[in-house]
Amino acid sequence: MSPAVEARREAANAEAFRRLTTSEPVLVDVRPAIEVVPGMTANTVLTSGPPLAWADYVGGQRDALIGGALYEGLAGSREEAAEKFDRGEIVVGGCHDFGCVGSLAGIYTASMPVFVVENAPFGTRGFCNMYEGKSPKRLNYGVYDDTVKAQLTTIGTVVGPLIGEAVRALGGVPLKPLMIRALNMGDELHSRNTAASLTFARELFPAFLDLYAGKPAEVRRTLEILTEDHYFFLRLSMAAAKATADAAHGIEGSSLVTAMAFSCQEFGVRVSGLDGWVRGPHASVEAKLFPGHDASEITWMGGESPITETIGLGGFAQAGAPTLQAYQGGSYEAMIARNTRLYDITAGEHPDFKMPALGYRGTPTGIDVFKVLETGTLPAMDIGVAGAGGGQIGAGIVSAPVECFRLAAERYGERYAV
Amino acid sequence: MSPAVEARREAANAEAFRRLTTSEPVLVDVRPAIEVVPGMTANTVLTSGPPLAWADYVGGQRDALIGGALYEGLAGSREEAAEKFDRGEIVVGGCHDFGCVGSLAGIYTASMPVFVVENAPFGTRGFCNMYEGKSPKRLNYGVYDDTVKAQLTTIGTVVGPLIGEAVRALGGVPLKPLMIRALNMGDELHSRNTAASLTFARELFPAFLDLYAGKPAEVRRTLEILTEDHYFFLRLSMAAAKATADAAHGIEGSSLVTAMAFSCQEFGVRVSGLDGWVRGPHASVEAKLFPGHDASEITWMGGESPITETIGLGGFAQAGAPTLQAYQGGSYEAMIARNTRLYDITAGEHPDFKMPALGYRGTPTGIDVFKVLETGTLPAMDIGVAGAGGGQIGAGIVSAPVECFRLAAERYGERYAV
Repeated sequence: MSPAVEARREAANAEAFRRLTTSEPVLVDVRPAIEVVPGMTANTVLTSGPPLAWADYVGGQRDALIGGALYEGLAGSREEAAEKFDRGEIVVGGCHDFGCVGSLAGIYTASMPVFVVENAPFGTRGFCNMYEGKSPKRLNYGVYDDTVKAQLTTIGTVVGPLIGEAVRALGGVPLKPLMIRALNMGDELHSRNTAASLTFARELFPAFLDLYAGKPAEVRRTLEILTEDHYFFLRLSMAAAKATADAAHGIEGSSLVTAMAFSCQEFGVRVSGLDGWVRGPHASVEAKLFPGHDASEITWMGGESPITETIGLGGFAQAGAPTLQAYQGGSYEAMIARNTRLYDITAGEHPDFKMPALGYRGTPTGIDVFKVLETGTLPAMDIGVAGAGGGQIGAGIVSAPVECFRLAAERYGERYAV
Repeated sequence: MSPAVEARREAANAEAFRRLTTSEPVLVDVRPAIEVVPGMTANTVLTSGPPLAWADYVGGQRDALIGGALYEGLAGSREEAAEKFDRGEIVVGGCHDFGCVGSLAGIYTASMPVFVVENAPFGTRGFCNMYEGKSPKRLNYGVYDDTVKAQLTTIGTVVGPLIGEAVRALGGVPLKPLMIRALNMGDELHSRNTAASLTFARELFPAFLDLYAGKPAEVRRTLEILTEDHYFFLRLSMAAAKATADAAHGIEGSSLVTAMAFSCQEFGVRVSGLDGWVRGPHASVEAKLFPGHDASEITWMGGESPITETIGLGGFAQAGAPTLQAYQGGSYEAMIARNTRLYDITAGEHPDFKMPALGYRGTPTGIDVFKVLETGTLPAMDIGVAGAGGGQIGAGIVSAPVECFRLAAERYGERYAV
């Protein structure tokens, strides 16, 4: 790289890093996707990963898309749904193209409530739909049956509207302070959100008190769903991360990654100074499976939650979440070592997201394509693992494929005449 | 020690350890001390530490006792209060003799609400009064003025009764599950109770919803006090620890410690197989002081919160609370090393209180007088530090004085003919 190009890259990355670390995501509303997501239509179903043609979605991700169509009432049977997708009467979209991020298969339909997160300093907005609850069988893991439908209906008719009402009554909920607190309480805000979910429930509780007289059952049910396990806040962490990463996207000359996502077919990254997705083969995973499952069942059906790693959370904050040993395997020493290596591939240390266990060092933030290639250290992501038969079968640590970074460097070279 | 005496000691310690680790503390009520604390009278003021004669309470602890008398309306002025203490018209008691444990100066008066914690498997009860809030000026740190009085009044008339009502409506709140969760969320349940306070608030939410219509201001104020900082749950941790440690007390032949406490004059330990307190000189402290204070101000005015260390929490669970670096000083590496050394002086590893950062190892539990003497490793305690002018001026790590353990071994020898 010539000194001039190098200097521009450094300046651009510094600006992208500044945007990543000074964003102020605030939850301002919860609304049905059709009302707030730009470009969303009644017959669109969104899903995770660099977008594919309908015919290329296979396995659990295809099942999930069909399940979404059924849930939305766009078809009366799986066969009819598939035919309508074939004919383009139901349209598939990639979440990221709509300002959304998808958890696992990441299915969004028009009526689903989404968190609306605004990042005022940079004028960006991120959306994410809501956690389906602790059952391993969920639409976002490719399963659609009466139980899944009932839970999605509760979320769509009770939980989403109630949280929306609470958030509006509170005039919005700044998320960064909650995320900072949670990082001091054993969360890394991807596969562990226990403290953040509890803290978020605490923030909403004053509004719940006022809503209770009119909606007692709704408030009680929502309170349960908010805190029943470790995952509710993940979707807020993802929406906050999307609003944050988008603020750092599109900076001419920047080689920092602004999204990582996968579909059933491939892994992809977005780079701030490049257009579109840079696509590569599947990532590799070290998983710990729930009892009764084995590695032969592991399948890819999409996932955009690594947006959290893109802003210095998840695998980039693992040292703050020692309980993940029990959930996704590996020793705490290995987690600390892995987390520490990620400083080699990032633009800097986050000024606000800190890890007490590393002497309050800021999390490694802003993945630089060229540093990945120089060091050979690959971004690590904490993810839930899907099974070929649908449903979550475990959790693990994923390493991004080096091919994406090689190709990104190539395209960077072409564009910026390195 | 003869083989027979040694064998009895081992068996007795195993039984004490079993009781320490299988206790099930449940918060069953909150009531004014006079209604529930055995032996409490209208003109009694309890304070921390092995009991002293009134004239021996000096400095902040004397100020705190006088403040308690004023708060309770037992005297109209500081002078009158002192005269009534002199004449025995106001009586001083040691908290432990009343089933209570005192935080710092540990002042209890008849009207103060106390947590009532039952340990049903062993038929013990522990009590603790309530956290005064985040102001460094508090009665338990030797300060009594109009602000302190107003806060104590709020606790006595609003917070205590409301939490009591909620707890009764819920049919009691089992504390051990909350403590186990908190140990997975960065608390050690002595100087860090952030997660436990939040989790406890979450447990009360359903009851608060029902109480809100009749008492909106009371519910809102209580919610604030429950979660405004890191300490609310400490008093529950202490009451749970007292009910637990008392279950392990009085086992013939056991050399395990069942209480550690100090007054303005001395440090003392209780040992399961010995009667009364074993008293020694003051402990030593490594403190981190709040800005504007220096070490010359550090003073002793009592403290019984090391009951938490007695059951395997606090200093014995430091490795689970890396944020304490910022509060009480020292590196996380030093905390882990200190915590790990404590396995050398304890009877075993707690089967339920675990530290994810140490590979889910159970906390070192059950301090053995003889192991302390053999290894020279002293029990470490996380404590708040009081200033000579009253109020909290910092926090730190206290090491128990070896003299108490030497004297305890001597008394053990006399009693059990070692």
